[in-house]
This record gives sequence, structure tokens and C-alpha cells, in this order.
Amino acid sequence: MAAGAAINKAVVRGIGDDCAILRVRSGFELLVTTDLCIEDVHFRREWHPPQSVGHRCLARGLSDMAAMGGEPLSCFLSLGLPSGLSQSWVDGFLQGLHDLAQRFKVQLSGGDISSAQQITADIVVVGQAPAGKALLRSRARPGDRIYVTGDLGGSAAVLRQLYQGKKVKSAKSSRHFYPAPRVEVGGWLRQKGLAKSMIDLSDGLSVDLAHICEESRVSAIIYEDRVPVAKGAGLSLALHGGEDYELLFTAPAKAKLPNGIGGIKVTEIGLIRKRSNYSSAIQILGENGKERSLAPLGWEHFRKQG
Amino acid sequence: MAAGAAINKAVVRGIGDDCAILRVRSGFELLVTTDLCIEDVHFRREWHPPQSVGHRCLARGLSDMAAMGGEPLSCFLSLGLPSGLSQSWVDGFLQGLHDLAQRFKVQLSGGDISSAQQITADIVVVGQAPAGKALLRSRARPGDRIYVTGDLGGSAAVLRQLYQGKKVKSAKSSRHFYPAPRVEVGGWLRQKGLAKSMIDLSDGLSVDLAHICEESRVSAIIYEDRVPVAKGAGLSLALHGGEDYELLFTAPAKAKLPNGIGGIKVTEIGLIRKRSNYSSAIQILGENGKERSLAPLGWEHFRKQG
Repeated sequence: MAAGAAINKAVVRGIGDDCAILRVRSGFELLVTTDLCIEDVHFRREWHPPQSVGHRCLARGLSDMAAMGGEPLSCFLSLGLPSGLSQSWVDGFLQGLHDLAQRFKVQLSGGDISSAQQITADIVVVGQAPAGKALLRSRARPGDRIYVTGDLGGSAAVLRQLYQGKKVKSAKSSRHFYPAPRVEVGGWLRQKGLAKSMIDLSDGLSVDLAHICEESRVSAIIYEDRVPVAKGAGLSLALHGGEDYELLFTAPAKAKLPNGIGGIKVTEIGLIRKRSNYSSAIQILGENGKERSLAPLGWEHFRKQG
Repeated sequence: MAAGAAINKAVVRGIGDDCAILRVRSGFELLVTTDLCIEDVHFRREWHPPQSVGHRCLARGLSDMAAMGGEPLSCFLSLGLPSGLSQSWVDGFLQGLHDLAQRFKVQLSGGDISSAQQITADIVVVGQAPAGKALLRSRARPGDRIYVTGDLGGSAAVLRQLYQGKKVKSAKSSRHFYPAPRVEVGGWLRQKGLAKSMIDLSDGLSVDLAHICEESRVSAIIYEDRVPVAKGAGLSLALHGGEDYELLFTAPAKAKLPNGIGGIKVTEIGLIRKRSNYSSAIQILGENGKERSLAPLGWEHFRKQG
């Protein structure tokens, strides 16, 4: 693998030795996340151009970093490639990954390569946050308000069209093909100390909020009429569709959250409550004024529905 | 993935959030290495028991860490699994990885999982070394002596038997099935300041020494009669066979190297020389007293020979 350009000074030594060497700022902790992308599981060659696949791989890792309020520094890429794959596909993939990496000053600092039956990309993102300040899933408390960034369900709506055999343009502005991880929003929330718990919406609101509830040992209620539904998606996809890579976070009632952070919309959608019993952890308040259970169906469910 | 037991205090938060959180010692740098293991490329299910596959995956990363003189802290595992794979295979794999991780107090702190056509395991090892003290490939100087740990060619000799259809016992003492990464030796050499450059022998002596020569812009000569040939291997496998996971390092002539470190044999096998021209970077001094070129054939060559 060619040496990545030096775009982050935390990387003392990148590609070319047995290990990469990084320097984490004094008083900071290290954050690490890994995400596996496999052909026909996470993407399809006939649906996703290689630039989109490369972008999406890194975006998943950067979104995990955003969800901790972390500052990404460096990434590592392990790549399994089928023997028949064209060089132009590989170049496109690396270009998509590279462009997103440049935008966040994330330096490709190592990795591995092998032949494989399916295109396989495992991405590692390494970042930093001041010691003790990373935003965890486990700090939501009863009475906290629940917020999300952006609109939800847009990525799943595109996926549904793809499953239906429709042609969809892979525009650079598409949150399905080129999701922009909310790194700046996550960092801002951590710096201001406003958010108490946070997660990124990769599996879908119902599943990811359930993670927050489980780790924090709380329950939650969502207001149906407040959920920001993306264009082309209905309420169901907004609640259960995955891969939006928006952030979900909780903040105390007295915290003054703006309704936008760095140009990204922020919407209050619900309330953290005491946990009663786990099987019905999350409720949704319908427009008819009645509460019902919100099962964590998520992304896998919709994939299977096709 | 189930939460890993807390066996390394550098891991502030392991599995269970968007990122793992690690604390690197003050004044230390972070070391990161990734290694991809794919079925039918790096191992075969009919040759390698699952415990061996799990052990070998982590051993590759730990060997890279050893080659920098680093102290391993934590690992991350991304796992792609075919749908028909038995739970007992996965359990065996994780057991093999876990046992080796325990031995070096390396905490499994995260990862990812997906379905895949082939068994796919990408392992990330994170470690630390005092700032500026990690042993690089680029510090070999003319006049330095070349040393290797252990015996060479043993792993390739077993692989040759497997290719020939012979039954080979996967004993725990086998350096092919259960290679012991030389983490203590690498750490000792770094602490004592004796070694100047180091690499692990994963691709084979001829290829890995060529990496040292390339990165250090030097040449080298190996003394044929000094190469420590493993039982069952000949000179050719000792020079070109891969996956021994021994260490190769260089030290100035005046450095007093013991002939064993922590019970591991250390052998002086050659000399770093000025670089003349790259195409014949490495020479070998035959038992007949004549020098000849040593082409970096390595491991891939022997795999293809079958």
C-alpha cells in the first residue's frame, strides 16, 4: 500500500514499518473503532459505485468516532480483493475513502491486503478525546431529553428503491451513497458538555435508542409527531431504517440545546424515563395521544423485507 | 461480541460502546498494526484446527508489535463468518485467540462481525513504547551485525508437508500451528538499546532482510554456515520460508549481544554493508567461500511451488 500523505501530525510514522506510530495528546485518551464492510452484505457492486463504497467504509468508522465526541486522527485499512477485480474499481474505492479522509484530516497509516472471494474492507479509525470526556451510551438519566441530528430514514428509503430494482443516482449529496459523519457536531456537544449520552444511528433509531436504554438502564418515550422524517421515507423507515449516520443524544431538561449545530438540524424527539421492565423499554406516543411499544426492529428487519 | 475480561489496565472501556477507550502511558507513543487472515489464503480448515487459526491471527499482530519492541495492550477483531460454519469452530477460534491474548495481557476491546463467504478475521493490535524508542526498519548502518532469534524454516517445512498431503500433528509446541511471538525478546532489545533496527520474519528471511535494506538504504551479506536451520527444514526454507515469527535485528559491532535472550537463542548471521546497487542488495557467503546474490523469494514463492 502506498504511503499516505502526512495530513495529521499525530501520526509519527505511517505506512512502511511493522507498526504505525501515533502520538496522543497529553491528557487525552485514545479512541478506537473497527468496521467490517463485505460485498453483498454491506454493499453491492451493481448498486454502489466504488467511490461510494470507499466513502461509506470510512464514514462508518468516523460516525462511531463522532458518537463519542472524539477527534479522528488516523485510519487503517485491511483489504481483501477478488482476483478478477479491476484496478479501476480499487482506485475508485481508494479515492472515495481518501477524499473523506482528507476532509477530516484522517491519515491512512497502515493496513493489510490479501486475495479474497468477496471484496472485504475492514476499517479502523483511531482518535482522541480529553481523558474522561468521551460521550458514552451509559449516561442517560430519567428526565433527560432525547435529540437527533438531521432527518431519518433517507438512507433506508434509497435502499428500498434499490431492492425494488429502481435506478437511483448516486449523487454526492445522497446520504445513502455519501453519508457525512457528524464529527463536528459530536465534538461540539462534547466540548460544550451539553450532551450526557450519545450514539450514532447506524442500525436505526429503534435499535440504537434501545442500546442507550440498555447501557444506561433506563426507558424512553418518542413523540411520533416530532420524528424528523427524511424526504422519500415514511415514519416506519425513520424509526427503523439504518445507515443514516446521524447522532442521537440525551441532555438534561435544563440544558439549552440550539435547534441547529454547525448548520445541522437538531430536533428534540422524546424523553428518557425510569426503566420499568426491559421487554417494553421504548414507547412511542402516537399522534392519537396513545402510547404503544416501539420494538427495536432496525435495519436487518428492513433488509429482509426487501 | 461478549465483553472481554479486564486484563489490561490501559483499557478504560472495552466492548460495548461506539469506540473503545484506551489510556497510553504519559511519555509513550501508540503502536498500531493490522493483519488480515482469510480462509484458503492464510489457513485451511482441513489443515488448521480452529484454535490454531485464532492463535495464528493474533500471533501475527503480536509479532509486529514485538518487531518494534512494543508492549501490546489491546486487540480488536473483525470477523466474517460463513452461514454454515459450526458454533464449535467459532468457539475454538476464539479460544485459541483468547489463550494467547491472556498470555500477553492483551485485552480484546472491540471489533465487528458480519456474514461472509470465507472465514475472514482482521486483527488489530494496539500497544505502546516510550516516545522515540520504537525499533524501526530504517536504522541499520554499514558495519552492523545481523542477528536472528530461534531457528528458521520450521513453519514452512510443516506447510510443505501439508501441501504434500501428509498428516501433521498440530501440537501446541509447533511453531507452524502455535507460533510464539517474541514480544519479550523485542521489549528487552528495545530497553537495553542494543538493537538498532528490527523486523519480524513473517515473509521469510530473504524478503524481510530486503525490507530492512530498503528502508535503511544499505546492503547485507549473510553467512550460509551461520543460518540456524530448523529441524525438518533445509537451507532454502530457512532463507525463504515464511511465518517463523522470529525476529531479525541489527546491532553495532561493539554491542555485546548474548547468545540467548530469555531462553530464546540469538545467532549472528551476517553483516550490514554499504549499498552498491539495489538489484543485488543481499549477498550470501557460501560454504565454498564464494558470494552469490540472495534474491528475495520469500514465502509466496514457496506457496506457489506447493
